[in-house]
Amino acid sequence: MSTSSISPQNVSFPIPDELASQREGAEIREICSHQKSLGKDIVVVQGLGFVGAVMAAIVADCEAGGRAPYFVVGVNSPSPRSYWKIPVMNSGLSPFKAQDPEVDKIFHRVARVKSNLRATWVPDAYAEADIIIVDINLDVTKLEKGNAQNARVEIGAFKRGIGQVSQNMRPDALILIETTVPPGTVEHIVKPIVEKAFNERGIDLQSFPPQIAYSYERVMPGDHYIESVKKMWRTFSATNDEAYEKASSFLSSIIDTKSYPLCRLQSTTAAEMAKIMENSYRAMNIAFIHEWTLFAEDIGINLFQVVNSIRVRKGTHDNMMFPGFGVGGYCLTKDPILAQWASQNIFGRPDRLQFSVEAVNVNDMMPHHTFELLKKSMGDMKAKKVAILGASYRKDVDDTRNTPTVILYDDIKEAGGEPAVHDPFVSRIIGREEIDVSHDVDATLKDADAVAFVVNHQFYKDMPAESVTSRAREGASVVDAFDVLSDDTIVTMKKHGLKVSGVGKGHIRYL
Amino acid sequence: MSTSSISPQNVSFPIPDELASQREGAEIREICSHQKSLGKDIVVVQGLGFVGAVMAAIVADCEAGGRAPYFVVGVNSPSPRSYWKIPVMNSGLSPFKAQDPEVDKIFHRVARVKSNLRATWVPDAYAEADIIIVDINLDVTKLEKGNAQNARVEIGAFKRGIGQVSQNMRPDALILIETTVPPGTVEHIVKPIVEKAFNERGIDLQSFPPQIAYSYERVMPGDHYIESVKKMWRTFSATNDEAYEKASSFLSSIIDTKSYPLCRLQSTTAAEMAKIMENSYRAMNIAFIHEWTLFAEDIGINLFQVVNSIRVRKGTHDNMMFPGFGVGGYCLTKDPILAQWASQNIFGRPDRLQFSVEAVNVNDMMPHHTFELLKKSMGDMKAKKVAILGASYRKDVDDTRNTPTVILYDDIKEAGGEPAVHDPFVSRIIGREEIDVSHDVDATLKDADAVAFVVNHQFYKDMPAESVTSRAREGASVVDAFDVLSDDTIVTMKKHGLKVSGVGKGHIRYL
Repeated sequence: MSTSSISPQNVSFPIPDELASQREGAEIREICSHQKSLGKDIVVVQGLGFVGAVMAAIVADCEAGGRAPYFVVGVNSPSPRSYWKIPVMNSGLSPFKAQDPEVDKIFHRVARVKSNLRATWVPDAYAEADIIIVDINLDVTKLEKGNAQNARVEIGAFKRGIGQVSQNMRPDALILIETTVPPGTVEHIVKPIVEKAFNERGIDLQSFPPQIAYSYERVMPGDHYIESVKKMWRTFSATNDEAYEKASSFLSSIIDTKSYPLCRLQSTTAAEMAKIMENSYRAMNIAFIHEWTLFAEDIGINLFQVVNSIRVRKGTHDNMMFPGFGVGGYCLTKDPILAQWASQNIFGRPDRLQFSVEAVNVNDMMPHHTFELLKKSMGDMKAKKVAILGASYRKDVDDTRNTPTVILYDDIKEAGGEPAVHDPFVSRIIGREEIDVSHDVDATLKDADAVAFVVNHQFYKDMPAESVTSRAREGASVVDAFDVLSDDTIVTMKKHGLKVSGVGKGHIRYL
Repeated sequence: MSTSSISPQNVSFPIPDELASQREGAEIREICSHQKSLGKDIVVVQGLGFVGAVMAAIVADCEAGGRAPYFVVGVNSPSPRSYWKIPVMNSGLSPFKAQDPEVDKIFHRVARVKSNLRATWVPDAYAEADIIIVDINLDVTKLEKGNAQNARVEIGAFKRGIGQVSQNMRPDALILIETTVPPGTVEHIVKPIVEKAFNERGIDLQSFPPQIAYSYERVMPGDHYIESVKKMWRTFSATNDEAYEKASSFLSSIIDTKSYPLCRLQSTTAAEMAKIMENSYRAMNIAFIHEWTLFAEDIGINLFQVVNSIRVRKGTHDNMMFPGFGVGGYCLTKDPILAQWASQNIFGRPDRLQFSVEAVNVNDMMPHHTFELLKKSMGDMKAKKVAILGASYRKDVDDTRNTPTVILYDDIKEAGGEPAVHDPFVSRIIGREEIDVSHDVDATLKDADAVAFVVNHQFYKDMPAESVTSRAREGASVVDAFDVLSDDTIVTMKKHGLKVSGVGKGHIRYL
């Protein structure tokens, strides 16, 4: 096992040993004790991922009546994959690159100016916490592409995290869970773990019923990352009235509840379901479009134009999705599977959540369609260079979590082709660090036998047809998988002998 | 075969014989000739159903520069089922009951005041027409419940209608099709029929290419029936530029295009697809909710509350549907099947439109779930009276086309129960005239062993719990299938010993 952890900036941090951990534990206890003496509540954030790290910074940055009501300790495991976040955050830097300029500022402010955030790997802060916010990832492993029914829900790490909290926490502290979990998790998994730990610790459950609340975030990568936490509706619920009151008052201090009033649901299960249903809805709306995309391509229709003509119906149809390359990110690709898992494993229901789960399958298979368009246009792909323009899953961001780009990449490799990936925002693809991502689009396009536009970054939209026609091989194939190219650009490319097709763009044959 | 046609008001009209038809033909020609001499264009509307009748009235009512630009002839077949509409409309009455007070007024105005609309059964007006608007129904027969893949598209009547038009029309007239049709119908079915007829009539297709446009309505039964035609976006396309110009200018004279600009699509196939896709989207959004409805009921969740908490997300989630009893009406229950049919029969595609067609199946099976809730609560239904409150498919309207009420009715009958239907708006159910629909809710509720609220008419929402508790049998079962009952009303009912459950209302067990 590696004994160091390497940051995206290629800085290597040695993973602390037992002695260092003991010293760190003592220091954390001392810091918490000092901060309490200043009248602050101690908030521990467990899990410093995309949500947890930002949440930790926002809570640490919070002010009420001219003072900071909370001191924040962020806890993350000291694994080679993510230990580096701890020293990076403590030095006042953001653990990830973000389009939102507020992200860099807030991490600097809370660590260096206000000294109100401390990241660590030791569990000592749990015993000091008034509120413990759980932001551990709860992942899904898809064992087989296009068969979400057969996916594995990795709830083990989440349960171990809750175990660690419950073995150390004050019995009157609030656990506030933000992780997206299978509906029923708080009631049927978290609460029993905490009660068991309290029993083992000799804590009377009558006097100290576990205080657990559930409230999910709706954070959105992009230009308004921080705002998407603070200025956003929050749905929540809790296991008892005391927990509800604490969660309500805490959330009100973080969220702009004047503009975005809190919404209390009847139970934590209802709140957990809301999050999953919300994302399943989105996933299904995307999957719905895909079957019309294929239809439109086959019969020569520009589906973008059709969808735009329908979206004029405000309130009923204005959220219809457009054809696209695929679905990435952390939520839509897995959340329906969590519902399915809960239905079967927590509630013992035989029914499937048919549309929701099938939506994941359709969306997972979507990037193969772009591969099919390439193959149809190119024929044999062996030893042919295919430029893939785009590595993130969303316009003008660098987020590569579950990006569909890798599916196309693998398809091309498997067919004997030579994929070359470019993205102006991305330097490496999470989980697929061996894939080279270039920032030099001319080099990527040079001598390409085919070009696939797979993300609608403004950078690609602004590229003139000549960028491709002057660099790709004569008669190269072009697939516009994400509505990057205007009809004018396509016409120019066709005039230069390129073979152009596009996802949802059946009309190209008539251009 | 019956020789008379009976209106909903029970007036019997003898169906005209051959001689009467000859006289009518001569009169229609004379009227058209006179109206032309007044400088009006002749518009013929083919098919006087829910859309055609209103469209005929709106066009006849149209004024431009202080005068009526169009004289309208409405043509309907002289069948026992619908001949009565012709004398009814000519007498200045609306052929259907509508909540919108404008409906009665406009039919009176155009027939009695302006004398600008003439309904008839003879085809003589086609030869006089400048514009022929096609509003014939194109129906789908479902051979098997829950198996929309196996449905039959009844395109015969539509094709015969087009045949009749093309054999009589002036070669330079515009055919404007409003009927919801399988995508590709104008290009692959209508145009060939017209071209064949022109050939047979010795009309030169080079000089007279058929002028065909497609534009679908978005009419909505209810309080704003007339406005839903005039103040609504119109998507359209045409087979050639001349047809496009004529359709554009005609629609601009009818629709408020200042507020609702016309949207031209690339081809008639694209416009046909837009209509079908629009309704398929809605159908699928409903079907999506149903699987969550069942989940929520099983695990004790109030799904209405959950959906409301999600709908705060404007622009992405605010059109999420609520749990309900079922789907009725003319569009959502069949349109995805038209897409499927076109895909296979016009374009020879092997692919299914999986989500869209499956949505029809799920929605068609929905009312069975209310039956299951009744059965679960009642046990054996034999000889038990079940009050069904609601016969239309939509709040506060009398529209019973494809109402899911009949599915529940049949289920109860089949189980040996005795359904009794009430609806404050409905007197008879289209296609199921043998079912008694009472206007006396007390009589319907009297001695009922069970009560199902299946439409959220305000009338039912305003009913106090006592209306049920004082009339139904002791310990009767109540199923709220359409969010009619407030939690307070449910609590009162439960206090009186009624067994209450509800679609999407898993929380009732805790009330």
